Amino acid sequence: MQKNNDEKENKYTNIGKRIPKLDAIEKVTGKAVYPQDIKLPGMLYGKILWSKHAHAEIIDIDTSKAEALPGVLAVITAKSMVLTKMGIIKDNPPLKIDRVRSLRDEVAAVAAVDEATAERALSSIKVKYKPLPAVFDPEAAMKPDAPQLHADAKGNRNMLQYSFEYGDVGAAREESDVIIKHRFKLQSMTHCCMAPCSCVAIWDVTGRLTMYSPTQVPFLYQRDLATVLQVPTSDVRVIQPKIGGGFGQKLDMYPNEVICAVLAKITGRPVKLTYTREEEFRCTPSRQPAIIDMEVGAKADGTLTFRDVNVILDNGAYTSWGATIPYVLMNPITSLYKCQNIKFNTDIIYTNNMYSGAMRGYGNPQGTFALESLMDMLADKLGMDALELRLKNCNRPHEVTPQGMEVTTCGLRECLEKVADLIDWPNKHDRRDIQTGTLRRGVGLASYFHVGGGARVYRSDGCGAIVKINDFGHVTVITGSTDIGQGAETVIAQIAAEELGVRTEDVTVINSDTAIKPWDVGAHASRTTFIAGNAARAAAAKVKKNILKAASEMLGEVPKNLDINDRMVYLKSDRGKSIQIGKVIRATHFREDGKTFTGEAFYDPKTVMQDEQYRGNISETYGFGTQGVEVEVDLETGHVRILKLVVACDVGRAINPLLLEGQLEGGALMGIGYALLEQLILEKGEVKNPTFLDYKMPTVKDVPPMEIVLVETNDPAGPFGAKGVGEAGAIPTAAAIGNAIADALGTRIYELPMLPEAVLKAIKAQLNVDE
Amino acid sequence: MQKNNDEKENKYTNIGKRIPKLDAIEKVTGKAVYPQDIKLPGMLYGKILWSKHAHAEIIDIDTSKAEALPGVLAVITAKSMVLTKMGIIKDNPPLKIDRVRSLRDEVAAVAAVDEATAERALSSIKVKYKPLPAVFDPEAAMKPDAPQLHADAKGNRNMLQYSFEYGDVGAAREESDVIIKHRFKLQSMTHCCMAPCSCVAIWDVTGRLTMYSPTQVPFLYQRDLATVLQVPTSDVRVIQPKIGGGFGQKLDMYPNEVICAVLAKITGRPVKLTYTREEEFRCTPSRQPAIIDMEVGAKADGTLTFRDVNVILDNGAYTSWGATIPYVLMNPITSLYKCQNIKFNTDIIYTNNMYSGAMRGYGNPQGTFALESLMDMLADKLGMDALELRLKNCNRPHEVTPQGMEVTTCGLRECLEKVADLIDWPNKHDRRDIQTGTLRRGVGLASYFHVGGGARVYRSDGCGAIVKINDFGHVTVITGSTDIGQGAETVIAQIAAEELGVRTEDVTVINSDTAIKPWDVGAHASRTTFIAGNAARAAAAKVKKNILKAASEMLGEVPKNLDINDRMVYLKSDRGKSIQIGKVIRATHFREDGKTFTGEAFYDPKTVMQDEQYRGNISETYGFGTQGVEVEVDLETGHVRILKLVVACDVGRAINPLLLEGQLEGGALMGIGYALLEQLILEKGEVKNPTFLDYKMPTVKDVPPMEIVLVETNDPAGPFGAKGVGEAGAIPTAAAIGNAIADALGTRIYELPMLPEAVLKAIKAQLNVDE
Repeated sequence: MQKNNDEKENKYTNIGKRIPKLDAIEKVTGKAVYPQDIKLPGMLYGKILWSKHAHAEIIDIDTSKAEALPGVLAVITAKSMVLTKMGIIKDNPPLKIDRVRSLRDEVAAVAAVDEATAERALSSIKVKYKPLPAVFDPEAAMKPDAPQLHADAKGNRNMLQYSFEYGDVGAAREESDVIIKHRFKLQSMTHCCMAPCSCVAIWDVTGRLTMYSPTQVPFLYQRDLATVLQVPTSDVRVIQPKIGGGFGQKLDMYPNEVICAVLAKITGRPVKLTYTREEEFRCTPSRQPAIIDMEVGAKADGTLTFRDVNVILDNGAYTSWGATIPYVLMNPITSLYKCQNIKFNTDIIYTNNMYSGAMRGYGNPQGTFALESLMDMLADKLGMDALELRLKNCNRPHEVTPQGMEVTTCGLRECLEKVADLIDWPNKHDRRDIQTGTLRRGVGLASYFHVGGGARVYRSDGCGAIVKINDFGHVTVITGSTDIGQGAETVIAQIAAEELGVRTEDVTVINSDTAIKPWDVGAHASRTTFIAGNAARAAAAKVKKNILKAASEMLGEVPKNLDINDRMVYLKSDRGKSIQIGKVIRATHFREDGKTFTGEAFYDPKTVMQDEQYRGNISETYGFGTQGVEVEVDLETGHVRILKLVVACDVGRAINPLLLEGQLEGGALMGIGYALLEQLILEKGEVKNPTFLDYKMPTVKDVPPMEIVLVETNDPAGPFGAKGVGEAGAIPTAAAIGNAIADALGTRIYELPMLPEAVLKAIKAQLNVDE
Repeated sequence: MQKNNDEKENKYTNIGKRIPKLDAIEKVTGKAVYPQDIKLPGMLYGKILWSKHAHAEIIDIDTSKAEALPGVLAVITAKSMVLTKMGIIKDNPPLKIDRVRSLRDEVAAVAAVDEATAERALSSIKVKYKPLPAVFDPEAAMKPDAPQLHADAKGNRNMLQYSFEYGDVGAAREESDVIIKHRFKLQSMTHCCMAPCSCVAIWDVTGRLTMYSPTQVPFLYQRDLATVLQVPTSDVRVIQPKIGGGFGQKLDMYPNEVICAVLAKITGRPVKLTYTREEEFRCTPSRQPAIIDMEVGAKADGTLTFRDVNVILDNGAYTSWGATIPYVLMNPITSLYKCQNIKFNTDIIYTNNMYSGAMRGYGNPQGTFALESLMDMLADKLGMDALELRLKNCNRPHEVTPQGMEVTTCGLRECLEKVADLIDWPNKHDRRDIQTGTLRRGVGLASYFHVGGGARVYRSDGCGAIVKINDFGHVTVITGSTDIGQGAETVIAQIAAEELGVRTEDVTVINSDTAIKPWDVGAHASRTTFIAGNAARAAAAKVKKNILKAASEMLGEVPKNLDINDRMVYLKSDRGKSIQIGKVIRATHFREDGKTFTGEAFYDPKTVMQDEQYRGNISETYGFGTQGVEVEVDLETGHVRILKLVVACDVGRAINPLLLEGQLEGGALMGIGYALLEQLILEKGEVKNPTFLDYKMPTVKDVPPMEIVLVETNDPAGPFGAKGVGEAGAIPTAAAIGNAIADALGTRIYELPMLPEAVLKAIKAQLNVDE
């Protein structure tokens, strides 16, 4: 359901239209080609041998039996090829050299004529280990006598750390009428992409590598892969087939891709390496688990005074993006609702667990869960309505947050009010008095603050676009951006079509080859619609300008009096005076001194990188939104049923309400999984539930009644006013559900997921207290 | 061997370098993918049923047995789908409806799971014909009682005809001291592409067609195919895999490609249709055979007075490009050597033979053979040296020919002189007196005039290019042009690299997808180096300009004082002050308000289309050259051995001497085949020699000692001075050989090929005369 977009009032031909994804039919009919579908002549299949120990020395690897197996073309170990260490701080050898530090460590790999042979080869590799003591808890790993994982990481402390300070927390604490402090624990969760990680590597006869990869960041990947392989970056060409889900999982380059390339290099044949579903659970980076100690204060009137936060991260054995999530985790702490005194610190600690990566929201769901839980707790303690407390401290347009983030448009107040209205907050909140039987109902809400206009995490946050229009008015947009299933292709087609005055169906989007497409930093930080949309629009505008110029000669009118809509160039003052766009193009092309129409643009937002104090306006606009839920908790079973979920989101402008709703619904469902179901259960570093039977992600039966409200603030920097909202749906859901459960029960759960046993435990603890 | 390019004096880094084709290794190692190599999941194989009669009514086609065969997915006839007639004048139904007019007429087609099943299906289709009287000779077909092929072609006259008149031929004839008239007969010849015609058609789920095709003209093909299939042009996407030879064969779209698309549409599966080698001989269009009646005159001092020419063309049963060759055939008549009175006419006559298409030189070899034979005959009759006659009437820079062709640079005199020198003309020509035994030696020469700077045959003669350079200085050129094996990719890479100041190896050329590449008219008329080269250069220049601008800020110098060479931006006055191009790019990209470097350009030459009188400057520059041969004729066997072949060519500038030599050598070898060996033998419309055993094309054993002279006139309009010479090598060879044989024997052969039996016949005829 979609509220704020009345198509009747829409002045646009393509913007605001409920257009299905351009590749939807291809995907649902099974015609789309994902990496795992690729078959090439002579192609081999790669497989990785994982460590048998969470921490051990490698004494010897005997590959002789595997090498002798018929159909095995290569068996590799760290000794097979000199490779640079990889990862964010280069602490991860793609094949482990003399030591393994987790059960997902790559020890050896094979390439064989089929997967069965490759499996057989793996099982005949003999590895001699000398087990070492291991540590699986970050707080234990901080202790002086804990096993040490990396020689240069004293006390297992990762070199990364994030400290932020603003205002005077000490003084603010003194002035506070109410202070609350609590610890929150957030679990490991995994992306559950429908397509498992799969890549195909081919080296051509000139020694250049083509990788078919589902990467979300092809140009960074190209550089990272070349660095590890020690070849020039330009010798690596990245082709992105259809990508069956990203959600941040493919934001970093991982050893499997390097190993695939090495196997192809050594065998001289194309090699495909596809994870099994079990490997997908065991070996891909999870959402970063976190322990958050947060203290907040307020004055009696509800004015927020300070936030003092420390975050402990289980880094796992090596470092991928997971360890950097405090960069975003601190955003809601510093910037959601007004609070002028902030302290933020981290302990990022190596353990012998699997490492974590990026996942939709990137630390924000963790931070928001703690913060928004504490907002409700503050309201309780102040005797204030929780909605009122939020409205009192609500973000406003044109404010600058403590991190120097410059809010332009801001629809948070409207989102809060819409959600409160739709979940009937005044009548349903804080009404435990009227509840009866074993079922308890409650409502809760939570908001989010996130980048919405790119995020200058790298020195460039830009994206390039090339637009050409053919003689018949059909447009090609070559965009740097990446479609990971979110519908980027479709939205970019709509934006280019609108700018050029044609129809979305007239646009072909080319977006899958680094040799062809212009540079882009990748699909992350909810940036694609905003940044790639602006790039496509700018390139299209150049084409449009030249078409109007050409048409002006034909119509005898100055270009500024002309416009293009729905394939027609027309005189603004007299729409009857018009000419088909294709006619203008052909008349300009097919003549002496002919011209064709191509335009290119690079859009880099007007933002800065943050300084060492994490200050700076990294996004050209910011996203806001609120989710509200009504839950019903069964006191006997602990089961939580969501009766209704309302998602209100400041989308700037709804380019495509259908896809936006899909994004927000999908995000919120991921939030429901985070809140109530999903958890990678690790025991001594081993994932105990690496199947869809044991790992409970929400299915269609778990989808509650949802209402989506698109709040349009028409952002001046966005393409046709749009903001990025790719991650938005997933951020505040768990917090809203936690608040609703607390509203239902009168007691609160501080750890995710809030499984029935946790709910029962909380109920029991409350009874004990009450008794 | 390459004469005029001294690399030591070459001021360029990439231009003038002997760089092997970029795809050479890929091709010679068998890694290159041609259409026939494509395999797609579920792909079917198409086959065509050809007519059993040269002329007949189709009474009935019974496909029931074929349809019932297991593994047959579709059997189609003209009734299966409504298709528009195709070809230059739309006289060719892709599947014949109620009448066949030649033995290569398409009657039905099948798609099956493999080729064997498809063959079996063909043989079980029963076609009932009613034979009609047929005609195979164009002069016979002109007669009133001849069988009529097309209702709207009275007297079998094709609607095409070409008439040209300039000056006053009647008066000039009166004023001539010497007049000669003769008839010349030119045979059918075929392209002998190493890769047979093959295409793959796939319709996607949205109803759009992707064709993998070796077409030379993807954008014209896209439109033509869409027209026949009655779908919007933009719904057809053309992808050109590696192309294993074009030579004009793929300049038109033929029914096999339509049939492939129809089979794919009907079956809903990808379909590949590949010709057998026999089909390649029988069913692809040949070089246009011609009967040329030419009369020429001169004054006693050798001044050329007039040329009066009539050309009879055997059109075959339908009309492809072959019928239009008079457009080019008249070029040497009007423009090679100065002659101010010209009359030119054609009879283009339908017969029941196979139809002809475009082939390297496009009518020019035919016209040049007649003209240059007559030049020698004129010299004989005038008692003048044949070289002297040519030099006297030689074309000069800055003259305008009777067709209004504006010569700019012209190296013809130098070519004539170089060739005469290298074949030792003064000592070897006209020396039958010193010859002994049964072997006779002689020398001959002939020149050519051809477009060298594009050819505005269509309303646009343009080509687009997009150039991007990545953060490491690697360049992508997206060019509209087509590489048919001639090395366009390599030459364009050299031109872009030179303009940008990088190395050829730093360039990737993208040129194979109409959805991606900008428009181009196609690979024809020797235009690619000139037109696409200029486009790539212009796009690269835009990129360079912006790089210099960026570098000027870094180096503190104004852009005009800077230049780029070999990957370094440097100060012209002090080359020590320099900076790597990649550094400039990265510094400009990875910063706030960053920029990347992409440029686009469309190059349309400053030319006009010819008017209805065939007047107009259709090319921005013109190509000239001379070939000289020394032959040895065996009087007993009639065998002609070429002792030496010298090719001098005004190439404007040798971008890549290695490839130029390859082009000229390959062209001349094709000319040798035309002169001495190759002939499609047709009997009652049937090709009697459809195999490489029976059709004699020159092999490596027939390659004579060759000397290639590249004359550089540095054309002001060409990219770095280059002219197009793709067809040049093939044009004057047959005439030069004919002249050498006449020099050796004292008698002349007026028909091609000059097989031993023809030589013996000429010798015998001469003996009869002498007796």
